[in-house]
Amino acid sequence: MKIKPMTLKGFRDFLPEAALKRQYLIGKIREVFELYGFLPLETPALEYLETFSGNIGEDEKLFFKFEDQGGRKVALRYDQTVPTCRVIAQYRNLITLPFKRYQIQTVWRAEKPQKGRYRELLQCDADIFGVTGPQADAEVIALTLDLYKNFGCKNFMVKINDRSLFRTMPYEVIVTIDKLKKIGKEGVLEEIEKKGFNKTQAAEFLSTLMNAKPNETLKTIFTYLKSAGFSQENFSFDPTIARSFNYSTGPIWEVVIPEYDAGSVLGGERYDKLVGRFQNQDVPATGFAIGFDRTLEALEELKLLPQEKTKTKVLVTIFSPELAPESLRIAATLRQNGIKTDVYPNFDSKLDKQLKYADITGIPYIIIIGPQEKEKGVVKLKNFRSGEQQELTIAKLKTVLSS
Amino acid sequence: MKIKPMTLKGFRDFLPEAALKRQYLIGKIREVFELYGFLPLETPALEYLETFSGNIGEDEKLFFKFEDQGGRKVALRYDQTVPTCRVIAQYRNLITLPFKRYQIQTVWRAEKPQKGRYRELLQCDADIFGVTGPQADAEVIALTLDLYKNFGCKNFMVKINDRSLFRTMPYEVIVTIDKLKKIGKEGVLEEIEKKGFNKTQAAEFLSTLMNAKPNETLKTIFTYLKSAGFSQENFSFDPTIARSFNYSTGPIWEVVIPEYDAGSVLGGERYDKLVGRFQNQDVPATGFAIGFDRTLEALEELKLLPQEKTKTKVLVTIFSPELAPESLRIAATLRQNGIKTDVYPNFDSKLDKQLKYADITGIPYIIIIGPQEKEKGVVKLKNFRSGEQQELTIAKLKTVLSS
Repeated sequence: MKIKPMTLKGFRDFLPEAALKRQYLIGKIREVFELYGFLPLETPALEYLETFSGNIGEDEKLFFKFEDQGGRKVALRYDQTVPTCRVIAQYRNLITLPFKRYQIQTVWRAEKPQKGRYRELLQCDADIFGVTGPQADAEVIALTLDLYKNFGCKNFMVKINDRSLFRTMPYEVIVTIDKLKKIGKEGVLEEIEKKGFNKTQAAEFLSTLMNAKPNETLKTIFTYLKSAGFSQENFSFDPTIARSFNYSTGPIWEVVIPEYDAGSVLGGERYDKLVGRFQNQDVPATGFAIGFDRTLEALEELKLLPQEKTKTKVLVTIFSPELAPESLRIAATLRQNGIKTDVYPNFDSKLDKQLKYADITGIPYIIIIGPQEKEKGVVKLKNFRSGEQQELTIAKLKTVLSS
Repeated sequence: MKIKPMTLKGFRDFLPEAALKRQYLIGKIREVFELYGFLPLETPALEYLETFSGNIGEDEKLFFKFEDQGGRKVALRYDQTVPTCRVIAQYRNLITLPFKRYQIQTVWRAEKPQKGRYRELLQCDADIFGVTGPQADAEVIALTLDLYKNFGCKNFMVKINDRSLFRTMPYEVIVTIDKLKKIGKEGVLEEIEKKGFNKTQAAEFLSTLMNAKPNETLKTIFTYLKSAGFSQENFSFDPTIARSFNYSTGPIWEVVIPEYDAGSVLGGERYDKLVGRFQNQDVPATGFAIGFDRTLEALEELKLLPQEKTKTKVLVTIFSPELAPESLRIAATLRQNGIKTDVYPNFDSKLDKQLKYADITGIPYIIIIGPQEKEKGVVKLKNFRSGEQQELTIAKLKTVLSS
């Protein structure tokens, strides 16, 4: 019986064209992370369930959890912050503070699948561990700014706030206020009341917030960003952003791209109490996670992603089985010169079929070596887009294709 | 109560130094895959269990399988070949044959944890789908050769065989013969007898095999590799290699590095019947999986991996909070020039502590901007290894650090 080929709800295959775009963005992110001196870290996809449980607030029902063959309760990586905190406690003697790490791995969340909501997501995090002062927050916010600048975004805004401004506010109110943009002022007030507060209290919470002013921490951060040369068109104080994680302990920030209305594309915060779940000593920490899918979608809409179907530069065709050795020799030479070269992998296919393959897969050049070319010691190079065709020596060919 | 920070058996954390080595090798592999015109593909970490079950032969007990929240039987990605076969059947109209795809993702196997055996592994696959002829096998074997050449290996051997040579041999005998190198001739004979064959039969199986000669398919492959310029010191016919997957249908090959005795570092094969599990039509296929951990370990032993603790070039120190803006301005300039630059993220730390941080994390240069430097409009650049120290203008600094 045939097995029906299908993917689980909320999970995605990425065919080459989509995978190339993802790779491009991952490359950019890694480049900027490294430009800021962050070092890579990798943690396993599976952890003991208790590593995650109790950290994440209202989202625990979203864990992918099960019992493994040895009867251990395990969970798939839900985020990258908690595993890194575990790592810091576990390898205390191997890690020097301040520790600037980045992590680019998959996380899994049993969300109700819907448009733009997936159960498997790539996350890209950068965090600084071991620094209490706001300079660390400022440095990761500077990195935040440089990421979106490097993606080619002009019109984006890093909205910055400080969780300490709400110290007297109950957690469930903060979670509600975070929805201000989504459900509006009336919606927020209504929801706060539903949570057991009266009209006056609800209004007071909201007004406390709308009238908040930057504290010393935030002022230090803004000065830092100005010293590093960032334009004030790309960052601002916004007391209405709240983030929903219950482990935030200080500055919080989000990136919003006005042309993209599906929500913020990055979220960051200080979380000084999380490492302390794994050891007696707290380790202060601050950093962010890029929403990879949203960022990719936003860049696609803004036409900031390369539109390429392939990275391959040239297809070497096979004129006939007898002439195949010539083609293989040329292909080997091109590859030795770093030119991305495909060879048609079937010596019995007609030239037409080979050209059609190059056309469909988007390879810009093809090479033909027939009996005449062999005799003259040249190759025929055809540019697919322009239709231009030329006879070249191997030396010349390398130059043309390397440019 | 504190949670004990620990990793599950068979799962690994990679701290920066190890993660950098892994990244280096992944980069090399991707580079060579693309040099050969292969395109990236990504599939989900979770699949319906039935996608995997029944394909893999004797290893099914190694699946990480469970029921998800929706009661679906699911399994973690066990290999990358089966999911790609599913993809080919599922997106038939979007995929042009021949289809050359590579895939670099994690797989999970519930192996008994022991030295060098992990439950979470990176796999790096390259396969050609849609070609029956041996040129496709030859092309992926050429890629195999160029991979290990590009890693810097001199002394490695691609051992090539054809499963069709054993067409009359029972599967359990083939599996046993694959252990020839591990358990020796006597061991193999003994194990075949245990599987219910008599002494004469066992001896005959083994002798059939030891005296086998290359068939037409293998001769074509060897001619192809010679045309592409590969040295015969790096590939040979070896009738004793068998591979244990029960879906091989033609050529099979392995890479062995003589100085590394923990087993083959890459395995490949033709498997023409696997896509046909998901659709009525068979699609021929051939390709390989790099054993990433073993390859990395072998390269480490051969000293072919870069020994770097960081990619960061320079640490900009903070002389005092008042002079911090100078440091931030310099750091921003260096980063705009593509120089990987760290800034010490705490303005109150003594210079000594900052230097110690650079030393431990392996950053080769540090920059100091004190009151004198500020006044003169220069920076002090110190090379950690040589101890050399110089005063430079910003323009000069960029040149020195870019080199």
